[in-house]
Amino acid sequence: MSSSDIFIGETIGTAVLILLGGGVCAAVTLKRSKAQNAGWLAITFGWGFAVLTGAYLAGGVSGAHLNPAVTLGLAIQGGTAWGDVPLYLGSQLLGAMIGAVLVYAVYYGQFHAHLTDPEIIKAQPADEAMVDQTAAPKAGPVLGIFSTGPEIRNGVQNVVTEVIATLVLVLAILTQGLNDEGNGLGTLGALVTALVVVGIGLSLGGPTGYAINPVRDLGPRIVHAVLPLPNKGGSDWGYAWVPIVGPLIGGALAGGLYNLAFA
Amino acid sequence: MSSSDIFIGETIGTAVLILLGGGVCAAVTLKRSKAQNAGWLAITFGWGFAVLTGAYLAGGVSGAHLNPAVTLGLAIQGGTAWGDVPLYLGSQLLGAMIGAVLVYAVYYGQFHAHLTDPEIIKAQPADEAMVDQTAAPKAGPVLGIFSTGPEIRNGVQNVVTEVIATLVLVLAILTQGLNDEGNGLGTLGALVTALVVVGIGLSLGGPTGYAINPVRDLGPRIVHAVLPLPNKGGSDWGYAWVPIVGPLIGGALAGGLYNLAFA
Amino acid sequence: MSSSDIFIGETIGTAVLILLGGGVCAAVTLKRSKAQNAGWLAITFGWGFAVLTGAYLAGGVSGAHLNPAVTLGLAIQGGTAWGDVPLYLGSQLLGAMIGAVLVYAVYYGQFHAHLTDPEIIKAQPADEAMVDQTAAPKAGPVLGIFSTGPEIRNGVQNVVTEVIATLVLVLAILTQGLNDEGNGLGTLGALVTALVVVGIGLSLGGPTGYAINPVRDLGPRIVHAVLPLPNKGGSDWGYAWVPIVGPLIGGALAGGLYNLAFA
Amino acid sequence: MSSSDIFIGETIGTAVLILLGGGVCAAVTLKRSKAQNAGWLAITFGWGFAVLTGAYLAGGVSGAHLNPAVTLGLAIQGGTAWGDVPLYLGSQLLGAMIGAVLVYAVYYGQFHAHLTDPEIIKAQPADEAMVDQTAAPKAGPVLGIFSTGPEIRNGVQNVVTEVIATLVLVLAILTQGLNDEGNGLGTLGALVTALVVVGIGLSLGGPTGYAINPVRDLGPRIVHAVLPLPNKGGSDWGYAWVPIVGPLIGGALAGGLYNLAFA
Repeated sequence: MSSSDIFIGETIGTAVLILLGGGVCAAVTLKRSKAQNAGWLAITFGWGFAVLTGAYLAGGVSGAHLNPAVTLGLAIQGGTAWGDVPLYLGSQLLGAMIGAVLVYAVYYGQFHAHLTDPEIIKAQPADEAMVDQTAAPKAGPVLGIFSTGPEIRNGVQNVVTEVIATLVLVLAILTQGLNDEGNGLGTLGALVTALVVVGIGLSLGGPTGYAINPVRDLGPRIVHAVLPLPNKGGSDWGYAWVPIVGPLIGGALAGGLYNLAFA
Repeated sequence: MSSSDIFIGETIGTAVLILLGGGVCAAVTLKRSKAQNAGWLAITFGWGFAVLTGAYLAGGVSGAHLNPAVTLGLAIQGGTAWGDVPLYLGSQLLGAMIGAVLVYAVYYGQFHAHLTDPEIIKAQPADEAMVDQTAAPKAGPVLGIFSTGPEIRNGVQNVVTEVIATLVLVLAILTQGLNDEGNGLGTLGALVTALVVVGIGLSLGGPTGYAINPVRDLGPRIVHAVLPLPNKGGSDWGYAWVPIVGPLIGGALAGGLYNLAFA
Repeated sequence: MSSSDIFIGETIGTAVLILLGGGVCAAVTLKRSKAQNAGWLAITFGWGFAVLTGAYLAGGVSGAHLNPAVTLGLAIQGGTAWGDVPLYLGSQLLGAMIGAVLVYAVYYGQFHAHLTDPEIIKAQPADEAMVDQTAAPKAGPVLGIFSTGPEIRNGVQNVVTEVIATLVLVLAILTQGLNDEGNGLGTLGALVTALVVVGIGLSLGGPTGYAINPVRDLGPRIVHAVLPLPNKGGSDWGYAWVPIVGPLIGGALAGGLYNLAFA
Repeated sequence: MSSSDIFIGETIGTAVLILLGGGVCAAVTLKRSKAQNAGWLAITFGWGFAVLTGAYLAGGVSGAHLNPAVTLGLAIQGGTAWGDVPLYLGSQLLGAMIGAVLVYAVYYGQFHAHLTDPEIIKAQPADEAMVDQTAAPKAGPVLGIFSTGPEIRNGVQNVVTEVIATLVLVLAILTQGLNDEGNGLGTLGALVTALVVVGIGLSLGGPTGYAINPVRDLGPRIVHAVLPLPNKGGSDWGYAWVPIVGPLIGGALAGGLYNLAFA
């Protein structure tokens, strides 16, 4: 796999992943969206089909990792060369930021209608509020369109949740070749991975919103911090380490478990 | 592919696409329908499985474009001959109109029960109201069964939304051959494309209702203008250019991006 | 295909189809069911996965028609010998009746809790009420667990709805071989057919509840008439011809259209 | 298949099955979960994708039974050696217990917030209440996150429901090889089995919550009895035989029916 294939596949694939994933959060959150309040099933299927679209699109180009935790797991397993890891990660972060900007472009009118509504403005918490409170307001804050946040703020608990959820994801990806005698992430693999992500969301997303991907959280959080959104509230940088550290540990554990038990 | 294959596949396939796609909008909108108020998930899955059925049915005949934006992207990519483009587009528009008439046939009783209800009649806006208002009434107008409309009426914003949503769709279709060494739109491709459309609906459908297909909007809008529905309200021709121009730009951008990055 | 294969596959496959299809109607209708009021999406996905299970189970044995409209369409197309048609139809009707009895066995306690509740008893209409009224009570009647009924009672309209919905189903089944160079109803075909049925339910099920299969309606209706359910209301025999005649016309039209346009 | 493959595949696969399956019950039950009250569709799809993930992960290693009823059916059919059965069953029970502990780890904060809420504490029934009452409280009891319970408590009825539901599941798994000329539980088989499980949940889950798997119920019930959860209520051991006996009878019947009718 050439460097340009990795760069193109991971950047475009992750951009599409975050465009659709952030998009469904915008769709169910923002006023004046046809999908407002469409519910948790809509969010989990939306993220799952975001993975499907990104993986389907980039699968034949870069292998469609779209996630540093997947890249790390594959590097430990031996499926990806360590020398390619920095390019994978950089392309994924770039793609995630592009995707978040595209969400803003798609929902431009909705963002501005939402954030100039007096009732909604009160629901945008500043960073200090995020540290103090344990339960963020459920509806209203636009930060949730960009990055994840915990229902109960506790670093250790939140990391444990992200580690376990990511371990399931990356182990499923690593073992998929065992099912069909070595087939890689073809169309069917992309489909099953996408539905596994729906399942992880439904089952393990309750406490932290299942980042399970460091750039899925960091990229859009940077964009939230930079975008000139009125009344947007804080970017909650105090939590930003959790969805980076947790998924990376989970991906590494998956690689190790694979080598120990399945190889 | 012969001209008669293109004509038959695109006309019948697009008719089925619009019959099922318009059908789910009728199902959730009209009084005396078992599915009234079934919600946004029902609409997005309904449209996705409409794509599945049309693509599955016509895939082996005409390649199942069913969408001028797809045809344009494939022509730019080189997968479809430019000389076949007019026949594809004409067949798609004809099919879309047939599909919209079939929706009327399936829901004949419901349309008439709905449009003779005094409360519902008030909810059918005239064209002038559509231009003036920025938010159409959510429930009641039957035009939404036929064609799309924006939640916030702003030509530039609405076109941008349609461009990005269509770009995702067409790029996913163009790259699918890369996943499995050249397989075309077979059964699995039709399934994945359908779920990509569900995803686009969930994630990017909030602002404009995701036409992402010029004939999906224009064909049924013509039928709405012509059908002898009582109290049907205006056909909102002032918006009709958006779901034509936006998707065509998106499809062309996808073809160009494919040639630039993936070829 | 031997006679015993047809008998076994169609009887068991249709029994499973109706067990799961009737089961989801029982699940969302009856008091003391965990799924009560789970909604239209639950019903349509439940019926779709009922088709999946029945077709998956019987596909390799009898071809998994499970539906006289499919058998008729295949006979007209030439895929099924006319001499086998009576055995297919008889086995399907027997299977449908077995399935309906099994629904009763699974939900025995729920049926009796439901039908001895004074509020619910009032909601079981007698046959005369079904003829007079145009809108049946939405919740409560257990006949809807067994067979279909129209929201607006009009023979011509109801037949047209069933014809069009069945035409879509059978045409999709007939053309599936064109997609992948002659593959029959294997695992992937069963999956796509199931999702097509979900789509038909979401999109075209609003007016009549999409029988799209004569034995799906007749078999359970016979069982409803015979079962010793207390306060069960009438079996609505005045409507029983619609979900027989409509689907058979739709299946025949699909066979004819296939021969005309796709062969 | 080596003993270590069976042990690794079944232990890890069943752990993932119960982690995701119990996880979705925690997600919709517990306070301070983003998915609280996400509904029956979320539960049934969550369990289905739990099966998908476990089966996908372990399919190429141990064949992914993940369920003593499946192992029993396969042993009767002849697909699994009787001598391997004890190892399959022991690994599955161990995996189920590990999965239930992991659910506790993922939702640690939610469990403790839930079970220290004065309103919620009242909803945790003691074992005696479970024997006396026929309808358990719908919301609140955390036992439902671990094991199943009936809506109407009647041993014979509850066993019949579990027998029929498991018969459908195991028969579908046994016949899948007939569909595609001997393919085993590859990726597509895992996907279809998962959707069959969604269908069984939607259609047959109303009366007893569809254990359809002895270790799915017993393993987490043991963990519930042992875990130091405050105010957790009783473990309802009086019901524990039903989801063991019912599924085993169903699996055995499926194996017998397969040999009689399909072999």
